[in-house]
Amino acid sequence: MNSTIDLNMVNAYIPGRVDVGPATAAMIARRDALLGPAYRLMYEHPLHIVRGEGAWLIDPDGRRYLDVYNNVASLGHCHPAVVDAICRQAATLATNTRYLHDTILELAERMLATVPDTGLAHLMLTCSGSEANDLAYRIAQVRTGGTGVIVTETAYHGFTDAVAKFSPSLGASVDLGAHVRLVPAPRQYHADGADLADRFRRDVEAAIHDLRRHGIKPAALIVDSMFTSDGILPAPAGLLKGAVEAIKRAGGLFIADEVQPGFGRTGEHMWGFQRHGVQPDIVTVGKPMGNGQPIAGLMATTDAVAQFGKNSRYFNTFAGNTVSCAAALAVLDTIENEGLVRHAAQVGTFLREGVAELAGRHAAIGDVRGVGMFVGVELVSDRAARTPDRELTTRVVNRMRDRGVLLSACGMGHNVLKIRPPLVLTAEQAVMVIAALDEALTTAQ
Amino acid sequence: MNSTIDLNMVNAYIPGRVDVGPATAAMIARRDALLGPAYRLMYEHPLHIVRGEGAWLIDPDGRRYLDVYNNVASLGHCHPAVVDAICRQAATLATNTRYLHDTILELAERMLATVPDTGLAHLMLTCSGSEANDLAYRIAQVRTGGTGVIVTETAYHGFTDAVAKFSPSLGASVDLGAHVRLVPAPRQYHADGADLADRFRRDVEAAIHDLRRHGIKPAALIVDSMFTSDGILPAPAGLLKGAVEAIKRAGGLFIADEVQPGFGRTGEHMWGFQRHGVQPDIVTVGKPMGNGQPIAGLMATTDAVAQFGKNSRYFNTFAGNTVSCAAALAVLDTIENEGLVRHAAQVGTFLREGVAELAGRHAAIGDVRGVGMFVGVELVSDRAARTPDRELTTRVVNRMRDRGVLLSACGMGHNVLKIRPPLVLTAEQAVMVIAALDEALTTAQ
Repeated sequence: MNSTIDLNMVNAYIPGRVDVGPATAAMIARRDALLGPAYRLMYEHPLHIVRGEGAWLIDPDGRRYLDVYNNVASLGHCHPAVVDAICRQAATLATNTRYLHDTILELAERMLATVPDTGLAHLMLTCSGSEANDLAYRIAQVRTGGTGVIVTETAYHGFTDAVAKFSPSLGASVDLGAHVRLVPAPRQYHADGADLADRFRRDVEAAIHDLRRHGIKPAALIVDSMFTSDGILPAPAGLLKGAVEAIKRAGGLFIADEVQPGFGRTGEHMWGFQRHGVQPDIVTVGKPMGNGQPIAGLMATTDAVAQFGKNSRYFNTFAGNTVSCAAALAVLDTIENEGLVRHAAQVGTFLREGVAELAGRHAAIGDVRGVGMFVGVELVSDRAARTPDRELTTRVVNRMRDRGVLLSACGMGHNVLKIRPPLVLTAEQAVMVIAALDEALTTAQ
Repeated sequence: MNSTIDLNMVNAYIPGRVDVGPATAAMIARRDALLGPAYRLMYEHPLHIVRGEGAWLIDPDGRRYLDVYNNVASLGHCHPAVVDAICRQAATLATNTRYLHDTILELAERMLATVPDTGLAHLMLTCSGSEANDLAYRIAQVRTGGTGVIVTETAYHGFTDAVAKFSPSLGASVDLGAHVRLVPAPRQYHADGADLADRFRRDVEAAIHDLRRHGIKPAALIVDSMFTSDGILPAPAGLLKGAVEAIKRAGGLFIADEVQPGFGRTGEHMWGFQRHGVQPDIVTVGKPMGNGQPIAGLMATTDAVAQFGKNSRYFNTFAGNTVSCAAALAVLDTIENEGLVRHAAQVGTFLREGVAELAGRHAAIGDVRGVGMFVGVELVSDRAARTPDRELTTRVVNRMRDRGVLLSACGMGHNVLKIRPPLVLTAEQAVMVIAALDEALTTAQ
């Protein structure tokens, strides 16, 4: 672990801040030596995890932690339907897309069936969300002849060379591209009743104008419809409409980054963009797609991808391999069979209401917001002034970890608790989260 | 499938060229509609594969194809040790690198033990070889303050936005970066006895000079030590020395791309660069690392990665997940337990000698070369003039597929048969390859 403090990762482990005990200290030292200085751990006292089961992560002493943060294992850790699919397929065939096989075609049919009447016609597969956004950006450049990208000011879209250049949440020491423009995210809590949709549209229009003024042709507006890294901002439905029209008018594509909100997490639809009534040219997907098995990708319109397909073949050795496709099919089946979108809405609402009730006892809670299994809790040192309380937020995250509930923080001020439970969270588990937060807010003050 | 001919992929399926029968035609049409125009299939008559077993791939009618091309399933398809490791770990824990877990540390120890006395001290993990080369390039830019890249003229290093810009084998319609310079690969067969090491060093020096002349600071020389995409060119041991010294003297890094030659394929060492007695700053690895499970990464010196670790945290959701690490550990165990590096040398030599013997009967065989389980067979229309015979090469690849042996082609002239069997190929299977090639060369003339 790097001994410098990572100011851009709110919940990074900082060496020396607390005594983690000899076993953990030795493991961290071993890890630092082996993995080098760029890796980070979470929490003041990092966790050593050996087993996962439903919403639980378990350490070597058998202590159980309720994982309400990691949205990869969205069906719960080690969901048997996915484990079975992986084992069965891994023992039968694990190969690539230069041969015909059925699994990828079934997956494409199932995925495209989730976006009827959108014009999204093709599925292309990658290994990671970063690769998906990187490929989307390549496609957008070929389609538009431009390079300009517009993203929100604390966005995270990935870590490839191209995508890191439009991921401002990586921090000031990772340069943005000269062809990248940032627009403010729609922070309703700080907006004093302004018309957020109108403001967002105007900001995107100004960014388009500024790109052109510098001789840069716009390629794409890329938005995570839940503005997750910007602080979990479930903007009013329809908010994106004007901005999407603006980028299309300017000849650019609208890319919906569904890596975080996708696969039913909003409890309303399968995809976050669907609440805004907009039509993306490309939708990128990832994290929960294989419930842990590496798989991600994008859905695109025929128009978006036609020229790219003429210029460039696309092959990604591991992407679309039979095993990852089988895992993704099991995920889609499970979401449907277990009615998880509806469940996410119900338990998510219950959780959010429970957290909102705590605001009566805890003045630090400035705002509680979200949809489905997404809860953002903005902590402030002064409610009237809405002053971000980053230090309190870090303490609360760590006190909750000590109480056995795992979450993290996000947002421009690093002061928004990011609660992103698996879709299978039960009401009883939601009660545990609420109780732990109540205690953590009390002791962390 | 795109209806335009992909001139840059020698062995791509070209619609309409042969009658593939109604079942395959229907499956291709369904695939085209679902996956869009950028995907390619291999062979005149694409294969539908449903099962893999050792060196064999099996179609729905039970017909078996000897796979001497795909170097992902390097231990053989569905190797039980890897399948067991995946199943066991997927049922126990599949999570990321922001928690401590043992598997990634064991893997790092085992990987770094393969490169003693090189200064390579850290393992960083990615999902794909493309991500590995992309990350290596980001690290090189931060370390050197430069952007310039030097690669060989038919190199392939990956498909991300940044890496595609230095992957000339993607073809003329994918632009190279303005900061990219190409150098000729060491084609001994066409060199008329020239000193290839000296020539390669001089070409790299000229590229460095040209970058500087354009105000571009060199960041890296990136070389696949087997020059796989350039035509499988097992250059004389030590060939890279002068060029590596030149790039280091110029302040750039030497990146050894071991995605294709790595993990024992050369039958000499674990990594291809080791035959050249050079010291890479970064070594990228991929394809066979998980024998089908998505995992790739890089090993770097402390000096290369130090500044990157200060500027930027590195997190890749799926990379370094416990399941992929368990698969990679099983791969390393199996290479050792089954003595596969030695086996690759023995059976590889036997295979290469058998193919070389065919040259007595087939005037089209201009050159047979390789090391370990790498065989390149250069086909020519005129031995004296060494004229590349691309059309014959394509016919031979397809006749061999019809005879149940799967391989492909590569090289600048698209006229080099690329034989890259799994490390577990038996002598009996090598005999089948030689016999099929004998027949194919006879009927394809």
